[in-house]
Formats: sequence, structure tokens, C-alpha cells
Amino acid sequence: MEQRISIVTLGVTDLPRAKAFYEELGWRGQEMAETVFFQAGGLALILWSRDKLADDSGRQDRAPAGTFGGIVLAQNLRSREEVDALMDAARQAGATISRPAAETFYGGYAGVFTDPDGHSWEIAHNPGFTLAEDGSLVLPDFGADAG
Amino acid sequence: MEQRISIVTLGVTDLPRAKAFYEELGWRGQEMAETVFFQAGGLALILWSRDKLADDSGRQDRAPAGTFGGIVLAQNLRSREEVDALMDAARQAGATISRPAAETFYGGYAGVFTDPDGHSWEIAHNPGFTLAEDGSLVLPDFGADAG
Repeated sequence: MEQRISIVTLGVTDLPRAKAFYEELGWRGQEMAETVFFQAGGLALILWSRDKLADDSGRQDRAPAGTFGGIVLAQNLRSREEVDALMDAARQAGATISRPAAETFYGGYAGVFTDPDGHSWEIAHNPGFTLAEDGSLVLPDFGADAG
Repeated sequence: MEQRISIVTLGVTDLPRAKAFYEELGWRGQEMAETVFFQAGGLALILWSRDKLADDSGRQDRAPAGTFGGIVLAQNLRSREEVDALMDAARQAGATISRPAAETFYGGYAGVFTDPDGHSWEIAHNPGFTLAEDGSLVLPDFGADAG
């Protein structure tokens, strides 16, 4: 298996609401067949009906919409000021602030917001992780054994 | 907000089991402080304790581990044969086949497997989406209105 992700699909219960939330934060995408497609760097972020996504994935064991489902997305930024600005913009766009931005144990600065469908985003400035010009994140060599 | 994802963190209940599953599929990463970091194209895929991830994200409303949590990851491949091979490898590595590979309504070919912690991956060949040499996915212009 190649070591990459092509698409992250977020299941939503109200597509116009979800689309409006991400658009309020500046995202621009394409809507087709009750699905919203955002180009997000080298992958796509898709918004689609949570029930259809579960059906399509062959999953019957569905957690209630809006609950913590075990996956968290993160966006790393270049400064603490950028973290504060994005957390504030997310709050204004209707996000729940699940963890206000603060210093982290690893010497960074981060907060977490949760979108209207319960999907959490950590917004972080982590000086230990490299952000390339195009926004790609490059992990450091932790000096640990590979694999 | 920039239109990109830096990190996808998968909450797991048994880190050695989760790490072994992805390693069996060929992924190679670094383990540090009970966390496994994989470089995955321009972002990182991280495996971490599901409970710690929920705590760290300020979430109390936790869905039961292993249930469908409303997010599905996808990896797009270059042919149907690659899809069949990866679905088979995932099954052998201990994945649940949630939807066997088959033709899709959009003219592609895809299946879904679910990892030991209930995180679903759609494995797809979609001739309508461009895969760059480096594995980046580029959405087509659907001819729909932007955002």
C-alpha cells in the first residue's frame, strides 16, 4: 500500500450548513450530486451525507452524528498569531471551541475546534514540524527506529 | 483558512496492533511516546490512543471504539488490478472487508476495508480523478459553479 491519502470524506447531516461553514472559513470547492469537493493540497476533502457515507462504506455500526468518532484532522500554521486568528474565525463561523489555543507540552501552540457535524480540527503551530512553501508538512527524524 | 490538511490522527485502542496492521500493508514510520508517525505524501498520518486523542481534543461525547465515526479515508490507485491486490492484502493483514471491490456508479472500481480500530478506507480506481506521479490527487473541473 502506498503511504498516502487521496481523499478525506466528512459525513455531514446538513450539507448546506457544512458547506457554508467551510466557505465562511475561505474554502472554495465544487458541488455536484449533493456532494461538495474541495481540493486540499495533494488530496481532496469531500462533504457528503453521513448516512450515505456509512451505507456506501458498508457500515451498520454507526455512532451518533456529532459525537467524537476517533479521527481528528489538523492544520499546522506558521505562527501562534495565525493559530489565534483561525481559531477566532472558526468560532465566528459557528465552530465549537473544544480546546482553546494554548501552549502544548511539545513546545508548540494549538487549539481545537469542532465543526457543525462534530469533526474536530486541531489548529497548531509546531516548530518541530516543517511546513513547506506549498503547505506540505514534513515530519522530522525523531531519532527513533523506523517501523 | 488555507485549504489543506496537515495531519490525520487515527485514534486506536491497541497501538501495537494498529502499528502492525499498517506495517503489514507496507507503511513505515517512527514511534515515539506511544505515538506512531507516518509521512503520507504532504501530510502525516498518526496513530495515537483513542482516549488520549479525545481528551486532547476536549471531547466528552465519545462514540464507542470501532463504530463508524463519520469520516472515511480513501486511497486512489491507477488500475482495478491494484485495487484488487490492495483489498486482498488488507484482508490478509486483518482488515474487515466492509464492501468488496466492484464497479461504481461513476464508472470506477472500488471497495472498502476497515482497519482493526474501525477506520474505513475506500480503495478506488476512479478514471475521472487525476493521480500525479507523486500520488497527489487532482480533482477535475466538474463544470459546476465554484463554491
